[in-house]
Amino acid sequence: MTLTDGHVSVGQYLATRLLQLGVRHVFGLPGDFNLNLLDEMSTVQGVEWVGSSNELNAAYSADGYARVGRRAGALVTTFGVGELSALNGIAGSFAEQVPVIHIGGLPARASMASGAPLHHTLLDGDYGHFVRMFREVTVADAVIDPDDAAQEIDRLLVAMISASKPVYLGVPLDVANAPVAAASLDVPLAAVASDPQALSAFTSALTRHLANASSLVVLAGPDIHRRGIERDVAALAELPGISIASQSGSKAILDETHRSSLGTYLGATTRSAESRDRVDDAEHLVMIGTTFSDFTTGFFTHRYDPSSAVELALDHARIGHAVYRGVRLDDTVRALHAAAASAPLQAVPATARAAALVSATATATDDSALTHDSFWPQIQGWLQPDTTIAAEAGTAFYGVLDLDIPERSDLMGQPIWSSIGFTLPATFGAMLARPDRRPVLFIGDGSAQLTIQELGHLYAYGRNPVVFLLDNDGYTVERKIQSPDASYQDIVRWNWDLVPAAFGADQVTVLSVSTPAELQAALSSTRTSDVGAFIRVVLPKYDAPRLLEVLARGISEVNKH
Amino acid sequence: MTLTDGHVSVGQYLATRLLQLGVRHVFGLPGDFNLNLLDEMSTVQGVEWVGSSNELNAAYSADGYARVGRRAGALVTTFGVGELSALNGIAGSFAEQVPVIHIGGLPARASMASGAPLHHTLLDGDYGHFVRMFREVTVADAVIDPDDAAQEIDRLLVAMISASKPVYLGVPLDVANAPVAAASLDVPLAAVASDPQALSAFTSALTRHLANASSLVVLAGPDIHRRGIERDVAALAELPGISIASQSGSKAILDETHRSSLGTYLGATTRSAESRDRVDDAEHLVMIGTTFSDFTTGFFTHRYDPSSAVELALDHARIGHAVYRGVRLDDTVRALHAAAASAPLQAVPATARAAALVSATATATDDSALTHDSFWPQIQGWLQPDTTIAAEAGTAFYGVLDLDIPERSDLMGQPIWSSIGFTLPATFGAMLARPDRRPVLFIGDGSAQLTIQELGHLYAYGRNPVVFLLDNDGYTVERKIQSPDASYQDIVRWNWDLVPAAFGADQVTVLSVSTPAELQAALSSTRTSDVGAFIRVVLPKYDAPRLLEVLARGISEVNKH
Repeated sequence: MTLTDGHVSVGQYLATRLLQLGVRHVFGLPGDFNLNLLDEMSTVQGVEWVGSSNELNAAYSADGYARVGRRAGALVTTFGVGELSALNGIAGSFAEQVPVIHIGGLPARASMASGAPLHHTLLDGDYGHFVRMFREVTVADAVIDPDDAAQEIDRLLVAMISASKPVYLGVPLDVANAPVAAASLDVPLAAVASDPQALSAFTSALTRHLANASSLVVLAGPDIHRRGIERDVAALAELPGISIASQSGSKAILDETHRSSLGTYLGATTRSAESRDRVDDAEHLVMIGTTFSDFTTGFFTHRYDPSSAVELALDHARIGHAVYRGVRLDDTVRALHAAAASAPLQAVPATARAAALVSATATATDDSALTHDSFWPQIQGWLQPDTTIAAEAGTAFYGVLDLDIPERSDLMGQPIWSSIGFTLPATFGAMLARPDRRPVLFIGDGSAQLTIQELGHLYAYGRNPVVFLLDNDGYTVERKIQSPDASYQDIVRWNWDLVPAAFGADQVTVLSVSTPAELQAALSSTRTSDVGAFIRVVLPKYDAPRLLEVLARGISEVNKH
Repeated sequence: MTLTDGHVSVGQYLATRLLQLGVRHVFGLPGDFNLNLLDEMSTVQGVEWVGSSNELNAAYSADGYARVGRRAGALVTTFGVGELSALNGIAGSFAEQVPVIHIGGLPARASMASGAPLHHTLLDGDYGHFVRMFREVTVADAVIDPDDAAQEIDRLLVAMISASKPVYLGVPLDVANAPVAAASLDVPLAAVASDPQALSAFTSALTRHLANASSLVVLAGPDIHRRGIERDVAALAELPGISIASQSGSKAILDETHRSSLGTYLGATTRSAESRDRVDDAEHLVMIGTTFSDFTTGFFTHRYDPSSAVELALDHARIGHAVYRGVRLDDTVRALHAAAASAPLQAVPATARAAALVSATATATDDSALTHDSFWPQIQGWLQPDTTIAAEAGTAFYGVLDLDIPERSDLMGQPIWSSIGFTLPATFGAMLARPDRRPVLFIGDGSAQLTIQELGHLYAYGRNPVVFLLDNDGYTVERKIQSPDASYQDIVRWNWDLVPAAFGADQVTVLSVSTPAELQAALSSTRTSDVGAFIRVVLPKYDAPRLLEVLARGISEVNKH
């Protein structure tokens, strides 16, 4: 790979750094300003180019790859036209703390310096428009030169993994193949480490804080996944006196049948009233990698006081009002374990779980109309271990939230950014990151229309992905909020049964079900199948799972404002 | 419509203003932050909601609606997730001077003022991120309040039509249904008028400038379409001594078989060497509503000197180095006509046209492989008057540029911004703006994948649109530039023959052709058909029309840099 004399090209340097971070797939589309870069990157063994159907889908795929792969994601686009299409995806990664590098192929330096009137520009000579737009939704950005390329690439990548946020790298076409010294590639990149003094101070303070604690409730959030420290959190559940509730973005952190589990906390909409009270009335509440938003608090119906709790965040921690900067989540979770182990915690009785969604199988003769009430219990009975479950914002995500997630599985949604269409390309990315797991996607018909073209990729690259297309004739989530029969709730009707084959997936099992019996038959035939499946699930237009009904009422109240 | 007492709601005010500007269709998607707005707008008769499959497609459709409709375009999205997806489309409208209003439904004012941690935000309390991003690609923006809503809506709409550029309007959900005085609706909006003194000074100077002119060459650009003053320009062609060349974005301005037509000027890549010389060596060159870019000058191979020419732009004019601000294109074109009519212009011989692409019909037995060389002459013979021709960046656009455009027809492409995928949703928008014309779209398989979902809309709303899907197995335009066999040039193979039906278009004629004879049969059967058609045209992977070959070599040279 080395060019000559200890040098590699900028594109090779970048690809090598990505590979060192575990990035083995790069998404995106070619364009005349990034061809030099793609040619250089392709010479690095181990980094595979994955052509996406469009740039938004590329950004979503890179996000899903990072989320489920517990690593970074990467995409390459061309200047202007390409990069702007991806912005919504990058903003989602920012909102949900997903480390993604957006690499834009830019015109040559001389063209930009002279403000040349090139295609893919606004013809106003200002080459700064687009990087300024990315600056709003990234934690670091750079347009590189051969002189600073290695240092700037390293700076961006460290910023990305340290903050668990997206970054933007612009590579002019004449920089992509310029030589840079390869020497620094020998020094691996790592996230910024905890400040030892701050960590020591925090550990002492936490130990004092919990010195008389008899019980402790952990609220476990999605940033635990971002650091891949699920086991450290699960280990807390083995200590006496510790109960753990998860947030909707981190439901899979702890087996919800575990005696220490309180299930998923959502303020007043928490399934079990007892669980909700245990969090809200906790003697000591410790928030680990949590997010705080309307959807994660049941529209701010939480009663716990975040400001008096202990909070362990990605790059800082807080005990009540005392903030400790420069301590990393990985370290503070270990400190918590030690402090809790030495505290006088007393075993607490397990929470009576809310009547769990009993996994159900339908009789072969149940030809009533399928509803969410009957659909999800059947799904519960069908789900297997080693699954990547993806659930789209809307009926799908809020249906899945009432399920128990099987072992060695993951749940991917987007509860903060909630951009419809996200999960389909994200599932594709997640599948490449974890090919050992079966991808199972639940998505509504309205949402699927936004990003449907990545379905072809899912089946072309995947062994046996399963898509449940919840066909309820439009935007049911919006119908639940307001004006259910307005024309804007309708979508153009597609012939979903033809969609997989149209996208080239001719070896896929395609089924349509509208009764529990039909669903049962479909589930039986795909349970352990080695081919992909696309199951259109016909559901009533105004039917929604319990949680979405509650959520939509919350939004509706806000809108009446 | 009036609420009470001379008031209407903000949403009604906005919809009424749009209707006054000729906007009868509004594109977009519903989302919880824009439902109030959509409900209010829907009470105004004559403004139809057109639900799009996704926001980028909505922006493209609004752009196509504005371009071909010679009016403004409008789309409504929801906060964050929706609006960011549309940014690439809005940037394209900016680059190509298309008046579009992007209307974002925003959270309630109180939520934004307090920095509430709502879904669809970055959870950092900063509600200014997204409007700042739009500021880079719009000429005016506002987030409105009931107190200033009417004034701000009017300000934005006037800025939009005056500059022929996009604007951004943010409507908080609690503002959408607030009352505003209806009185100002009685005063129609109009683009800023010419400054009479500046116009008078310009007219005198132009008359002096042309006082001894014996001939004059007009380079006619796309802003002529933006002002809808094609007839005023065509009238120039009737004066003796005036020859008119068009740019690629305005090829349909003058019948290219007209004796005064020089055809389409593209610098050294102009089809006819004589035409090229007539422009480059003109005694007096007048640029009317032109754009100046790499693609419109044949990669800067023009020999004419823009700085010594006369330029008539949307809101100013220039004679050599003397600039006249505040004079409008509509007026300066009329001034040019008067000045030219009084100048001693001498009739010039018509240019020998470059061997026109002779319209051809294939014999029923020509079963050679179809190539671009044989495809376009057959298309030339098939095209009818009253057609909206759309041609995607790549093989399609540069193939169509060598055709003669039929009468009462339009050619829509995107020669400056050149965002692949644009034309498919733009054709849908254009079809709604001009339902009297048959839409005919030429698009490559790689480009079509980006925005394919709007195909369902095209056939659901259209009587008989025709799509020519140029199936050449990947990104042929990029193959022509660099690394033709790199894996990034490939796309996932779809089963195109199933695509229309998958999107619900089951009444459409679907044909695949790979020989001149098959194409001829397909053309014959769809020439005057009353149903839509989708014709997959199989073309060799490395084959491209003449102009694209030249263009790609130009880009390739730049990339080697």
